[in-house]
Amino acid sequence: MEEQDLLRFDKTVQQWLVDIRQTLEKNLLANLLISEKKGRRDLVTNVDKNVEKILTEKIHILDPKAQILGEEGFGDAVRTMRDHVWFIDPIDGTMNFIKQRDDFAIMLALYIEGQGTLAWIMDVDKGIIYHGGPKIGIFANQQKLKTPQNIRLEDGLIEVSGGRLLNQQLKLVEIGRKSLGIRIIGSAGMSFIKVIEGKAVGYVSKMQPWDFAAAKVLLESLKMPFTTIDGTEIDMLSSNTVLTATPCAHQEIVHLELT
Amino acid sequence: MEEQDLLRFDKTVQQWLVDIRQTLEKNLLANLLISEKKGRRDLVTNVDKNVEKILTEKIHILDPKAQILGEEGFGDAVRTMRDHVWFIDPIDGTMNFIKQRDDFAIMLALYIEGQGTLAWIMDVDKGIIYHGGPKIGIFANQQKLKTPQNIRLEDGLIEVSGGRLLNQQLKLVEIGRKSLGIRIIGSAGMSFIKVIEGKAVGYVSKMQPWDFAAAKVLLESLKMPFTTIDGTEIDMLSSNTVLTATPCAHQEIVHLELT
Repeated sequence: MEEQDLLRFDKTVQQWLVDIRQTLEKNLLANLLISEKKGRRDLVTNVDKNVEKILTEKIHILDPKAQILGEEGFGDAVRTMRDHVWFIDPIDGTMNFIKQRDDFAIMLALYIEGQGTLAWIMDVDKGIIYHGGPKIGIFANQQKLKTPQNIRLEDGLIEVSGGRLLNQQLKLVEIGRKSLGIRIIGSAGMSFIKVIEGKAVGYVSKMQPWDFAAAKVLLESLKMPFTTIDGTEIDMLSSNTVLTATPCAHQEIVHLELT
Repeated sequence: MEEQDLLRFDKTVQQWLVDIRQTLEKNLLANLLISEKKGRRDLVTNVDKNVEKILTEKIHILDPKAQILGEEGFGDAVRTMRDHVWFIDPIDGTMNFIKQRDDFAIMLALYIEGQGTLAWIMDVDKGIIYHGGPKIGIFANQQKLKTPQNIRLEDGLIEVSGGRLLNQQLKLVEIGRKSLGIRIIGSAGMSFIKVIEGKAVGYVSKMQPWDFAAAKVLLESLKMPFTTIDGTEIDMLSSNTVLTATPCAHQEIVHLELT
């Protein structure tokens, strides 16, 4: 895509997000309907579904030939990363959305021929959209972002998955002990934002493509490694362990031995 | 104290906090000096010390006969809860303050003859002061707060201490598994705020008097149990395990067996 088209897509999607945020505040929250998906901790609401429907329809108009992979299933059964593929996480951190009304995100990403091209993560409560791509740069709303300082694991706070930590998976106990401290927000998008802002040295979790697709574009554009916890390439069409961190901390975590 | 004096103290301290927040933004952050106290995770800055000095001086003028117990030691060696005792945590969540510039709090409390009388917790980043006491009610800035809904542990998010969870202390693994999910913010004040707002079902940690003194006043005024993790009374002049939660969840956690 040409730069002017990238900029047009970027601006268009930002406006969608601003509009959805207003709709959320005005209408959707008044009639919240909650149901379980795979268990009591895996919830979905009518808002998740509505937001995905709205975004799916808008993408169909903006980019008609694209395939869409959405968390709630209103998109397509995507089996290849050929051509244009969009990822939608309509409400990331649904539990926070239900219980706190803050610390949740809306995330979108566009990949072309498998390459992360554009992405958006909106901190809905604060109204800040982290957006951009490798060709146009990364921004928090209008402010251009720089690559976070390349600090070591022991000099930073590490964002982790609460469920995985409780079950002592993903070397999280060892990683946490080596770091300055662990933090658990309960939303992949909000945790990635801490890394983007340089407030956390990294983030480790296991997640689905819609959970990490946008962050991969934004963080790789900021020269931050984004791999599985073993340091291998992420598969965009399946569940992965995900490790993103400063280059220093990334190497330390990949090579960390279980004690 | 008479109600009009309580209201005068409450208003006066709120104004101190507003002023300190402005000073922080303008001056103190430009020259941040960081040093270790008891280890690499126990940091203190010139801001912690300056804020405690400022507050200690102001309390001496407002309430000359009071004893003051402050984290950084600018107050008194308090050995009895007789008469007026003030507690100061000048920067609660110093690590967040250093690494994130958000999710930290300033906390103050006034106890009279051992009874929690007035308290203040300021979310400095957001500029929201949670304040009040048993006689005048509890407020977030001007908005009066109600007792959070009495939900069960399994229906809520639980705030915990990251360090204690990594070391599998305080039954935190069992508590976390029974809850809807664990959250770690890295600041006692900010975690207590989640409980005050009804966003978390409770908070469990081990901490010093300046970490819990203000929250105890605010949460007990909202009819929330505030005890050790064994359900026993808190000692205001020593380190304690602290459990605050909805009445339902409090009973569940106190009686939870290690598995």
